Amino acid sequence: MSQFFIGIDGGGTGSRAVVADQNGIVLGRGTSGAANIVTDPEQSTRHILEAVEAAFKAAQLDISLYAQSTAILGLAGANIASARDAILANMPFAHSDIVSDGLIALQGALGDQDGTVVILGTGSAYITRTGDHISWRGGWGFQLSDLGSGARLGRSLLQEVLLSYDRIAPSSPLTEHVMAQFGNEPAQLVEFSKTARPSAYAAFAPDIFNYADQGDPVALSVIQQATGDIAQTLRVLIAEGTNKISMLGGLAPLYQKYLPAEQQALIVPPQAEALDGALQLALKKFR
Amino acid sequence: MSQFFIGIDGGGTGSRAVVADQNGIVLGRGTSGAANIVTDPEQSTRHILEAVEAAFKAAQLDISLYAQSTAILGLAGANIASARDAILANMPFAHSDIVSDGLIALQGALGDQDGTVVILGTGSAYITRTGDHISWRGGWGFQLSDLGSGARLGRSLLQEVLLSYDRIAPSSPLTEHVMAQFGNEPAQLVEFSKTARPSAYAAFAPDIFNYADQGDPVALSVIQQATGDIAQTLRVLIAEGTNKISMLGGLAPLYQKYLPAEQQALIVPPQAEALDGALQLALKKFR
Repeated sequence: MSQFFIGIDGGGTGSRAVVADQNGIVLGRGTSGAANIVTDPEQSTRHILEAVEAAFKAAQLDISLYAQSTAILGLAGANIASARDAILANMPFAHSDIVSDGLIALQGALGDQDGTVVILGTGSAYITRTGDHISWRGGWGFQLSDLGSGARLGRSLLQEVLLSYDRIAPSSPLTEHVMAQFGNEPAQLVEFSKTARPSAYAAFAPDIFNYADQGDPVALSVIQQATGDIAQTLRVLIAEGTNKISMLGGLAPLYQKYLPAEQQALIVPPQAEALDGALQLALKKFR
Repeated sequence: MSQFFIGIDGGGTGSRAVVADQNGIVLGRGTSGAANIVTDPEQSTRHILEAVEAAFKAAQLDISLYAQSTAILGLAGANIASARDAILANMPFAHSDIVSDGLIALQGALGDQDGTVVILGTGSAYITRTGDHISWRGGWGFQLSDLGSGARLGRSLLQEVLLSYDRIAPSSPLTEHVMAQFGNEPAQLVEFSKTARPSAYAAFAPDIFNYADQGDPVALSVIQQATGDIAQTLRVLIAEGTNKISMLGGLAPLYQKYLPAEQQALIVPPQAEALDGALQLALKKFR
């Protein structure tokens, strides 16, 4: 039987690990660099193991105890079997399993309770637990999905900026601010759009919420449209039985006040972080 | 003074040329391959000259008469100065000038009349003549603009297809048809979206209009949203004085019945093709 239980949270912004004993008492935590398992499995493996090593060091445990440890890794890209297998093959623990980053977020936010986590960052996704059943909605990426995400907000804003430049739609302090960022040259905006990644579009999201707070009509309109998309999905989930909603991601606190009151009433704060969710899953699965 | 007047229409689907005498009587026409002057100026030059050569041959004119000819070239990408200059440097005529493909379309469709041409194909754009003044609206590309274009219609449809797969929005015969094209695997749709060019999205447009004719609710909703975008721009142009609208491009005849009645009432059929517009401009400028 395992003596030590490891939770790992790895993604584009870094890798984090936590080690706990059989009672779930946290003994140490550690961090390292990014884990993009689809694009760079070798570096991801190295960073994941560095984070675990740092956690063991903080816990004053020798890494020879890996053989008496079990781990749950919550990783972006876990649905790609080849990427998952490449990581698993190099894990030195007695048992390891890889689950999605969304699942550890759900477990952290809601524990074992039924409910939905709404992730609103650069992308967006909805993960719902109903007993043993986990269902996913959205999260199919920037071009066709991720409604309400920072990337989609940014793209909608830039569309409005060009419409206002063409005098088809009204301009506003926000559209003028953005136009100035592109040297008041629509061609520069077009150039940007040819190569911009979702994160580049999402970089406009904080400004959108800031200007909306000052009453900017274009900012408010872009947010209201996006909120309508989020509310549409939540309505379906609520009709299916969701009665707890936990909102995660950088945009979650900004969106909250725009949601319909009956949806806001179901929002609960997350109980714990995704990393703790990974640890909980390790304890549930291997203890 | 020039004896012969040449109109040229060059773009991604081919190059066409027409030669006429001083009275504007067409003497011959010719065609050749694509002219993508931004990406391949050398091949474009070759194809343009081949089309003119074919027109001269059809007119039984010797190419030594190039020295007594003047040409207007209407080319996609004419707004890129470097591309334009590379073509102009290799034109063997007494005088040549390059204008946009949109301008020759406007001239062909409306002649010297005031009014607007609406181009609805893979992309979309609005070109308006008010006396000597030409104004452009839209046409800033697929990501942020080209509202109502085939590419935007296709992208909107695929978004609805994923929402229906997630059971957030209703499915329909059209969404099921598209889902089947992707093996009923949303991951295949996501893969498509990572690299799809505007033309790949636009390839869904004919199906959207066909299914709409059969009452498909998703097809109708996607078209109605796009028509709303088109009508928004037309409302502004009409308020500014446009009282003639000529609709061009592959989707133009399909959209017409969905426009508001008061906008449909302003639609006039195009008088002539873009190639004839180029010839008219050559006669106007050089005769």
